[in-house]
Amino acid sequence: MNGAESLIQTLVDSGVDVCFTNPGTSEMHFVAALDEIEGMRCVLCLFEGVVSGAALGYAAMAEKPASTLLHLGPGLGNALANIHNAKKGNLPMVNIVGDHATYHLEYDAPLTSDIAGIAGTVSHWVHSSATPADIARDAAEAVQQAGIGQIATLILPADVSWGDNPEGAAPAPAPATPAAVAADKLNEAAALLRADKDTVIMVGGRNLTRERGLQLGRLAEATGARVLTETFPSRVRRGAGTAQIERLPYLAELAIEELKSTEQLLLIGCASPVSFFAYPNVPSVLEPEGCTVFPLAGPNDDIDAAIEALLGEFDATGREVAVRPLEVPPAPTGALDANAAAQALAHHLPEDAIVVDEGVTTGLACFPFTANGRSHDWLNLPGGSIGFGLPAAVGAAIACPERKVICLEGDGSAMYTVQSLWTMARENLDITVLLFNNRKYSILELEFARTGARGGKPGPKAASSLDIGSPNMDFASMARGMGMEAIVATTADEFSDALATAMAFKGPFLIDARVPPLQLG
Amino acid sequence: MNGAESLIQTLVDSGVDVCFTNPGTSEMHFVAALDEIEGMRCVLCLFEGVVSGAALGYAAMAEKPASTLLHLGPGLGNALANIHNAKKGNLPMVNIVGDHATYHLEYDAPLTSDIAGIAGTVSHWVHSSATPADIARDAAEAVQQAGIGQIATLILPADVSWGDNPEGAAPAPAPATPAAVAADKLNEAAALLRADKDTVIMVGGRNLTRERGLQLGRLAEATGARVLTETFPSRVRRGAGTAQIERLPYLAELAIEELKSTEQLLLIGCASPVSFFAYPNVPSVLEPEGCTVFPLAGPNDDIDAAIEALLGEFDATGREVAVRPLEVPPAPTGALDANAAAQALAHHLPEDAIVVDEGVTTGLACFPFTANGRSHDWLNLPGGSIGFGLPAAVGAAIACPERKVICLEGDGSAMYTVQSLWTMARENLDITVLLFNNRKYSILELEFARTGARGGKPGPKAASSLDIGSPNMDFASMARGMGMEAIVATTADEFSDALATAMAFKGPFLIDARVPPLQLG
Repeated sequence: MNGAESLIQTLVDSGVDVCFTNPGTSEMHFVAALDEIEGMRCVLCLFEGVVSGAALGYAAMAEKPASTLLHLGPGLGNALANIHNAKKGNLPMVNIVGDHATYHLEYDAPLTSDIAGIAGTVSHWVHSSATPADIARDAAEAVQQAGIGQIATLILPADVSWGDNPEGAAPAPAPATPAAVAADKLNEAAALLRADKDTVIMVGGRNLTRERGLQLGRLAEATGARVLTETFPSRVRRGAGTAQIERLPYLAELAIEELKSTEQLLLIGCASPVSFFAYPNVPSVLEPEGCTVFPLAGPNDDIDAAIEALLGEFDATGREVAVRPLEVPPAPTGALDANAAAQALAHHLPEDAIVVDEGVTTGLACFPFTANGRSHDWLNLPGGSIGFGLPAAVGAAIACPERKVICLEGDGSAMYTVQSLWTMARENLDITVLLFNNRKYSILELEFARTGARGGKPGPKAASSLDIGSPNMDFASMARGMGMEAIVATTADEFSDALATAMAFKGPFLIDARVPPLQLG
Repeated sequence: MNGAESLIQTLVDSGVDVCFTNPGTSEMHFVAALDEIEGMRCVLCLFEGVVSGAALGYAAMAEKPASTLLHLGPGLGNALANIHNAKKGNLPMVNIVGDHATYHLEYDAPLTSDIAGIAGTVSHWVHSSATPADIARDAAEAVQQAGIGQIATLILPADVSWGDNPEGAAPAPAPATPAAVAADKLNEAAALLRADKDTVIMVGGRNLTRERGLQLGRLAEATGARVLTETFPSRVRRGAGTAQIERLPYLAELAIEELKSTEQLLLIGCASPVSFFAYPNVPSVLEPEGCTVFPLAGPNDDIDAAIEALLGEFDATGREVAVRPLEVPPAPTGALDANAAAQALAHHLPEDAIVVDEGVTTGLACFPFTANGRSHDWLNLPGGSIGFGLPAAVGAAIACPERKVICLEGDGSAMYTVQSLWTMARENLDITVLLFNNRKYSILELEFARTGARGGKPGPKAASSLDIGSPNMDFASMARGMGMEAIVATTADEFSDALATAMAFKGPFLIDARVPPLQLG
């Protein structure tokens, strides 16, 4: 087989059997090999930011990496923002970046670029295969490196792809396993939890399952500690039957208030909390001065075993724990605003849905409204780079074809990777997009005020830079242009009816919800 | 004034008075400063690839850099592909990339990223300002470094932006001037041109003006050399009254044929020709073995003076030179295909139009059809990274508001930066987009055959990866969704009529031209 075939066979044998692609000329032998090697599902995207965002959503839901196929340095550049997001969320990804043939690089053709340099800024591991005989082993190494939560980027020169690899596929690496937390760390954590101090257990990470949440709930009840999740954990199970765990607020001012009496902060699967941005006269660090911060387990450690061990210390294994009741509000009527939209979502949310949250300001209300709703997974934007929602919904739907995916999306954020709608239609994915069309960068209006720039009051040019309502965007029209069913909703009743239609429909559906912008002050 | 105000004042004083922006929280003081400092035109884009592509098109037409405002590493990543294109085309750009406050970086907030690392891969100069007192001088240095044809990236931490800069704006740098070509190089070139050898003068660069073309025509006629442009010079004046200069073909096989008898190759403003991609059994180098290659002048050298000096050597200053006659074909009728579209363009093309060419396969015919058309500027994609056309049209229209911009755009290529349509509508730019909607990545079908993968015949999965007609895209619907006038054309008559309407209309207009895909073989 040729290099590309041995690469794909190795990926498939290693369990990496989905590839989100936007190929170019240098990747044509990889594309050709898809018909020679069985088992790789190839999902075409029209822009590389969709490719990497889909790989992020897939990894969050499949709990293993997808591969991406990208075209040289500029293609990787286009994918960079969502690779950044995946990296910050500890979600694994195996990027295959095509390059010119090795012998062609010296001529500095127009598309020659510093692929390794670009990749290095967002990857835990970068490697360029030198010969066709190396590529299969390098692919196995990439999967190994991606492991549970890392970004591996393998550069595939065109001649390595088309050259003969007589050895064929390489053996699959051993499955990635989380590292055990050392006994002395567990002892130290137990001692902290025994101390008569105001203690917060902050938990984050890749997948906060219902079971892990219940264990944390037991630990909290047994020790008197409070449990909070980090602000934007990549994935968290929520709704009826889950433990009553709140999240740390986004706004630094509120987060500081939330933690103000905390004397001990135990970190599980997350870093110490920090303000998302810096603001004049607001501290970067959110816990109070003098608070003991103890990192018990990183995101790639065996978190469940560590919590289990602590539960044993406190005789709390299997302890009864309070869970959230099922509370489904009635459908809303009247004007359509953020609360009405959230209420409609909570009313219609089906059991076991996947909610992808890039609803920004309008979407804010959806989180509390669904806390006691039917049980669901909630995906957050872990790295802060806008444009993750629509593609992550694509990846989640590919990973979980039997589950309804609901994507909460702002109008501004939607436009970074709006090409995702086409892949939703092409693959007939069961995704409902709730497009909160408020014709503003409302989050930036809020942030403008928070930074105190110009006394917090934008002048006319600044205000214009935050206003995306001139011209107004019609997302239903855009969605139809990409082959997707869509409807406009201007009242709560219309929105709720549209949501009922979408929930009964199996396939991609967009609701262009005309909502008012966030009211400041 | 604060740092941001001193930065903007310095840019404006240095002649950099347009800023394409997609800001975030860390850039809010820059945005606020737009209302304090006069003279900076701020153009909002919904995606950073539009920002950098617009800066590219602006630089090509204004012959000076625009600034960009980008949000941290991921925003820069989104802009990377078109910065790459500008760099390859020797077009200047001053990128301002916001960063966290300097004291906030150590906390590794979600959006913390290696901005300098990302910037370094596509910039000639990268610098991060340390204090508000530095930022104005650093901005002047950035403008100086951008000069005629370089990429300068200045990283602006939030506290540098909001901090006080008592010194205010810095003095503008001296205008960039091209470097003179050394006398001995000119003598050597003259000797080569005097030799009785088959000689090609290959010319490239930022702006191949009518005057420079005529000078090259004189030199060719006086010496018997042939003049060719590189395949994709950033900007070239064409049509009636310009010199009869052909371009080197894109396909390596044809370029090799074009150059097969060449004994001497004189390079002016471009590098030695090289195959765009590598293919099995096709050489990377396009000139024949044994051909003397002589680089006379780089893109930033004083090319006009060098040619003038050579003309003096051959007593050809002011010599009569053949120019292209005006030949306007009739409007086409019947079926709409690539040739009919090209004929309609040549029929309707107004005097002094700017044509931005990302028409890929369907657009190929437009170039020869307009060779003897009304005089116009033609912008090519210099760096090969698709997604430059629509945003470059935005930038060109901002630079030249009195001229009609016509953007030739493929359906596949349009989707990388389709958000450009919104900025066209928002700024009411006089741009007509000819959207060649053939529902294929036709260029990749061609390239698949050329690489010889799988005997040149895609299997079903590969074929599906090159087919973007499932679902079909309706660009008129997408354009209207972004506030832009649009019409669908399915016959040559409809296309020609739509083009007549568009040429009579002052403002953004999209023609969704339903054309057949490229027929291979």
